[in-house]
Amino acid sequence: MKAVSRVLTNANIAPQVLGAEYACRGAIVTRANQLQRELKNTNNSLPFDKLVMCNIGNPQEMGAKALTYPRQILSACFNPELLKMGIYPSDVVQKADEILSDTPCYSVGAYSHSQGIPVCRQKVANFISERDNVESNYENIFLSDGASPAIKYVLQACIAGPQHGALLPLPQYPLYSATLSLLQGTQLSYALDEKSGWGLDLESCEAAILEGIKNGVAPRVFVIINPGNPTGNCLTEDTIKGALELAKKYNMVVFADEVYQTNVYDDRRPFHSFRKVLATMNIAEDVELISFHSISKGVFGECGIRGGYMELTNVNEEGKEQLYKMVSISLCPNTAGQVIAAVMCDLPKVGDASYESHTAEANAVYESLQRRANFLTENLNKVEGIDSQVVSGALYAFPTIELPQRAKEVALSKGMQPDFMYSMDLLEEKGICVVPGSGFGQEDGKYHFRTTILPAEEIMPYVCESIEDFHYSFCKKYQ
Amino acid sequence: MKAVSRVLTNANIAPQVLGAEYACRGAIVTRANQLQRELKNTNNSLPFDKLVMCNIGNPQEMGAKALTYPRQILSACFNPELLKMGIYPSDVVQKADEILSDTPCYSVGAYSHSQGIPVCRQKVANFISERDNVESNYENIFLSDGASPAIKYVLQACIAGPQHGALLPLPQYPLYSATLSLLQGTQLSYALDEKSGWGLDLESCEAAILEGIKNGVAPRVFVIINPGNPTGNCLTEDTIKGALELAKKYNMVVFADEVYQTNVYDDRRPFHSFRKVLATMNIAEDVELISFHSISKGVFGECGIRGGYMELTNVNEEGKEQLYKMVSISLCPNTAGQVIAAVMCDLPKVGDASYESHTAEANAVYESLQRRANFLTENLNKVEGIDSQVVSGALYAFPTIELPQRAKEVALSKGMQPDFMYSMDLLEEKGICVVPGSGFGQEDGKYHFRTTILPAEEIMPYVCESIEDFHYSFCKKYQ
Repeated sequence: MKAVSRVLTNANIAPQVLGAEYACRGAIVTRANQLQRELKNTNNSLPFDKLVMCNIGNPQEMGAKALTYPRQILSACFNPELLKMGIYPSDVVQKADEILSDTPCYSVGAYSHSQGIPVCRQKVANFISERDNVESNYENIFLSDGASPAIKYVLQACIAGPQHGALLPLPQYPLYSATLSLLQGTQLSYALDEKSGWGLDLESCEAAILEGIKNGVAPRVFVIINPGNPTGNCLTEDTIKGALELAKKYNMVVFADEVYQTNVYDDRRPFHSFRKVLATMNIAEDVELISFHSISKGVFGECGIRGGYMELTNVNEEGKEQLYKMVSISLCPNTAGQVIAAVMCDLPKVGDASYESHTAEANAVYESLQRRANFLTENLNKVEGIDSQVVSGALYAFPTIELPQRAKEVALSKGMQPDFMYSMDLLEEKGICVVPGSGFGQEDGKYHFRTTILPAEEIMPYVCESIEDFHYSFCKKYQ
Repeated sequence: MKAVSRVLTNANIAPQVLGAEYACRGAIVTRANQLQRELKNTNNSLPFDKLVMCNIGNPQEMGAKALTYPRQILSACFNPELLKMGIYPSDVVQKADEILSDTPCYSVGAYSHSQGIPVCRQKVANFISERDNVESNYENIFLSDGASPAIKYVLQACIAGPQHGALLPLPQYPLYSATLSLLQGTQLSYALDEKSGWGLDLESCEAAILEGIKNGVAPRVFVIINPGNPTGNCLTEDTIKGALELAKKYNMVVFADEVYQTNVYDDRRPFHSFRKVLATMNIAEDVELISFHSISKGVFGECGIRGGYMELTNVNEEGKEQLYKMVSISLCPNTAGQVIAAVMCDLPKVGDASYESHTAEANAVYESLQRRANFLTENLNKVEGIDSQVVSGALYAFPTIELPQRAKEVALSKGMQPDFMYSMDLLEEKGICVVPGSGFGQEDGKYHFRTTILPAEEIMPYVCESIEDFHYSFCKKYQ
């Protein structure tokens, strides 16, 4: 290629794009993809015989089977001829027909309403009403291609530039920091407290807000991920109340990222939605709240289909109109995702043809996730120098790793974060792909990695042993 | 709702969001949705008994049937059990199995590679190679949720702020102006020449560039929609060459929006891709070219599924890495869209089980679109005061309308564009939903509307008669 001046080069690309970082699919994953190709060569000299991708919550990549019921409905929505063949249970036929009947000309191939097919939104609203004992209106539901694009739309409406701040947890899921960087907004960080199981500390939140205000930054957005990503923490009702009070005090829009709401493994730490808690408070009508959910996690794990929703609470018509306009620029969320989101919110009931089989499948997935969460925590904590909080929710462990001083120096001298070097070495030596803590943000001088709980139960011991082996050899190498 | 200070209000929403406009789903469509609900009330007093949505190229909303072959493949990808039932033709089974075999764990429910499932990208690359007699590499293909998000990603990388300009046609598809507004970039407009059938005038392009440069704006992006939206024009090879020369001269990234490439109805104006034309030029390696395609148009018309692709030509590794990072923040395009994009690029061949039935279905769709394009042009041109160029491509007519002076005054006195008032009245009186020319941009003092060619053949006469009736009564009213 000749050396001519080009726009799409590091010298010329928009700096806000260059500055955005997204570690979950960064250099380590790119290297993992190379290794995957090398493994296919039977003459390879790699020190492992399989790669285990623990970098992202992608259940079906790790062998999880899709649930039968939603997939039958989806296949019938795409090929309604199947409805006449007598091959599907009656509730599958009824549900597919109900959804198709609410699309233009009985087809999911038409652009839908930009907020989504009305009956699908109604099912979401019913689900929320029942879950939270509140009145949810389908007009406040926006279906979306997973939670990520919905989060991006609302952030874009709230953040006009560096004068506007978003309060993000530290550590956080890097979608937030990357999007904020693209919008040139200011990140205000509140530290989660590792010692208390990654609890949310309201004083730390207020300190971050006041620091922002002092620097001329108006706090506009308060992001809470519950259950936590990457931390796995589930918030108590009191903490949620405190967060909402703080949002009210400083006029911040609350982003309740609740995509892991069914991934809750500890009975003592149940999931409480922000929607439900807000409804019980005397500021119930005073806080703008956007709640996000997704089909990618939970027991569905339908990452590739890209579906989800957001619900607007206390957002007035002006705000809703602007959000509608923004989503309408991309026409509509994909209809496969819309269908699955609706199905997730309207599961078979006792007596329905698929009730027993679906419930058995879903429970088996849930119970296996719970066992794996416990197994992983226990086994990581057996390793000297690795310390993991209990994974009470979500799909991840985020342990602290103690690294030899020399390892830190070597890494920094090579321009790498120490936990990046650790994670890259773990990949090269054991074929285990994790994400360094530095990709999520962490307290200065502390190091972590994030690993999913998703390896199948039969290979989970292998994963834990590989991490253990590697950790000791890494520490020895840099002693 | 109490009056408290809120972020998501017109007073506080990011001004670049407030300023973005997207007419294809604006106030007129919102009103059409209300009318649709009123129509369901059997006691309604509306002056029409059906709404005809001509506002957007959404074939399946207008009764177009989805093609059988891609839908069978898609349903099987979502429910692989169907592959074993003997209900699908052998090529459907083979194609679905081929795609599934290249997904993680044989499932479209896993996040794919952020650029898309490799075999799907390979099919796209093969399609381009064959169409254009060039070498296309699947590593330069990014599958996307329709063309729109791909266009947004690349614009975001190219435009950092008001110092950067994008050269857009006038009239243009408002995705471009809206996205540019969100990015706070500068719109540089080049007028399409209505008298020559909406031809692209290179002198007008260069004048717009020079005007931008004079004002301190660096032209970075050159958007060409071919076949044109809303204009329906197909560019000649010479014009494409001239545009590429201009892009080279001013170092602009060319956006070739070719989503209507199979919607070409006039043998004298065949489609030429920018990719193919560039390859024949001595600047073949010097122009950064991004070509966009979609499953939403053509004969597939699969708007709701949201699928498409972009191909990068002459974009170096740095640029590709940044685009990869941006798409990876949203994980991956939805897999249903990926599957259909792959199928669109790998149709049944002579001898395949579905070849005859698929070809017959696809040809019938194409021929009907061609008849409707001609019928619409002819019948619009029969109306005195409506003047439509030949629809040689795409899915739209964009006629000039001559409006009485008083209509213009009345509209402007109400704060409306005259063609907005005209279109709204057409909706209220006849139930025909079109988009005013002002939503796309037009020469000062001229007025248009955009209507699709998609009404079914049996109702096309009704649509044309309704427009004719309305036009005469509107002109009479404001005489």
